[in-house]
Amino acid sequence: MTAPEELRELIESYLDELALTPELGGLEASVRYSLAGGGKRVRPVLCLATAEAAGAEPETALPAAAAVELVHNFSLVHDDLPALDDDKLRRGRASTWVEFGEAIGVLAGDALLAEALRLALTYPTPAVARELVQATLGMIGGQYLDIAGGAPDLASLHRLKTGCLFSASVACALWAAEVPEREQGPWRAFADEVGLLFQIVDDILDEDGFALERGAEGARALADGTAERAQALLLEIPAETSVLSGIVAGLAARTS
Amino acid sequence: MTAPEELRELIESYLDELALTPELGGLEASVRYSLAGGGKRVRPVLCLATAEAAGAEPETALPAAAAVELVHNFSLVHDDLPALDDDKLRRGRASTWVEFGEAIGVLAGDALLAEALRLALTYPTPAVARELVQATLGMIGGQYLDIAGGAPDLASLHRLKTGCLFSASVACALWAAEVPEREQGPWRAFADEVGLLFQIVDDILDEDGFALERGAEGARALADGTAERAQALLLEIPAETSVLSGIVAGLAARTS
Repeated sequence: MTAPEELRELIESYLDELALTPELGGLEASVRYSLAGGGKRVRPVLCLATAEAAGAEPETALPAAAAVELVHNFSLVHDDLPALDDDKLRRGRASTWVEFGEAIGVLAGDALLAEALRLALTYPTPAVARELVQATLGMIGGQYLDIAGGAPDLASLHRLKTGCLFSASVACALWAAEVPEREQGPWRAFADEVGLLFQIVDDILDEDGFALERGAEGARALADGTAERAQALLLEIPAETSVLSGIVAGLAARTS
Repeated sequence: MTAPEELRELIESYLDELALTPELGGLEASVRYSLAGGGKRVRPVLCLATAEAAGAEPETALPAAAAVELVHNFSLVHDDLPALDDDKLRRGRASTWVEFGEAIGVLAGDALLAEALRLALTYPTPAVARELVQATLGMIGGQYLDIAGGAPDLASLHRLKTGCLFSASVACALWAAEVPEREQGPWRAFADEVGLLFQIVDDILDEDGFALERGAEGARALADGTAERAQALLLEIPAETSVLSGIVAGLAARTS
């Protein structure tokens, strides 16, 4: 099994060398800028680790993992725009619209989403792209709720804004690894818990969301319970899930 | 064979009744607003007519035709944004961002693109979605060139901004109608001429582009020559292409 750090190197190299559609022309610089911003690559690493646990070479899932990361970056680039969150900084650098102008910010986000789908569509089955599109629609709905208000509760909002794409990270890997649909249930349940765990810990570190709603200790207890459920679900899966187990432990304990 | 006006009614009804992804929630109003703006529905009608000429029921191509129209609307909604073309009016109504605010304008465009891909992915083959994604990437590249400058010539710019999606309108219909790839050549050559024809006549009506570059008479001659080539290509296709021939004649003669 490949360690998470090696999986991360795999996806970094793949993204670095990714050939974008030539028709994007000079827009490529802004797309690459947003992709090169670092970040933990949690979603693509989860995707690659899932594919390997499910019996495929991690390389098989590289286009899917990159597609998930591109959708994540699409959402960041558009959410940072002045009309939305008006974020001028992203991971310690100027956000894409600050660096390239607002018009290019809009187009770079569009290009990231379309390139993501192009990558997802390199598989013989349309299932990978279907998972990614559904997750994208959920994320867009989540961002709308965040702006317009009216989310029924924090968990529903987080499920849309974060959970959907974590679920797709696992589901796309299952399709890439050709896991039959009837065997995907426990993997998908696991993915839901991992997405929730990621978001709870994010809120603890940012002192908002669940940390405001339940207090620091309440949110910590919620994170620990979610991590336990994720680990328990892994035990139900007849596969070598040690790397996934390590990823869950790392997500629960992370401090940045 | 179904007349263009009936095909247009088919697509209007389909768009009216289209069930959007529930997770979009309140964003649906802005997506429907942009779709209900009328317009000639040239691309989806071309898509449906191609499918029928290729031997399928037009209804078979409805999801593909709607997907093409949604991608067209995605590009309009984003191009109208203040940071891009800053258009406040679209087909005689307030543009989407004016009606709903700029943030919703960004998200509505995103949702239109993602919904388009969802529709294209309802086919068993991923080929429909692949055509649509490639066309979308071309359009984004074209819009970038339009903003940033540096297009090698007007024809190249038009091919990206308009031609790609016309070609996809025909190509998606061919896949939906299960026309084998080896038989698609003349159809695709036809589609390229139709896209060019549409743009030349647009420029004549708007007195810009080709009309500025070649004068009114020169542009008219170019339009007529392009329509003739499109009609000649139709004659090479062993199918009942009378409705497509009528569409070409209508595009060449249109006055609005």
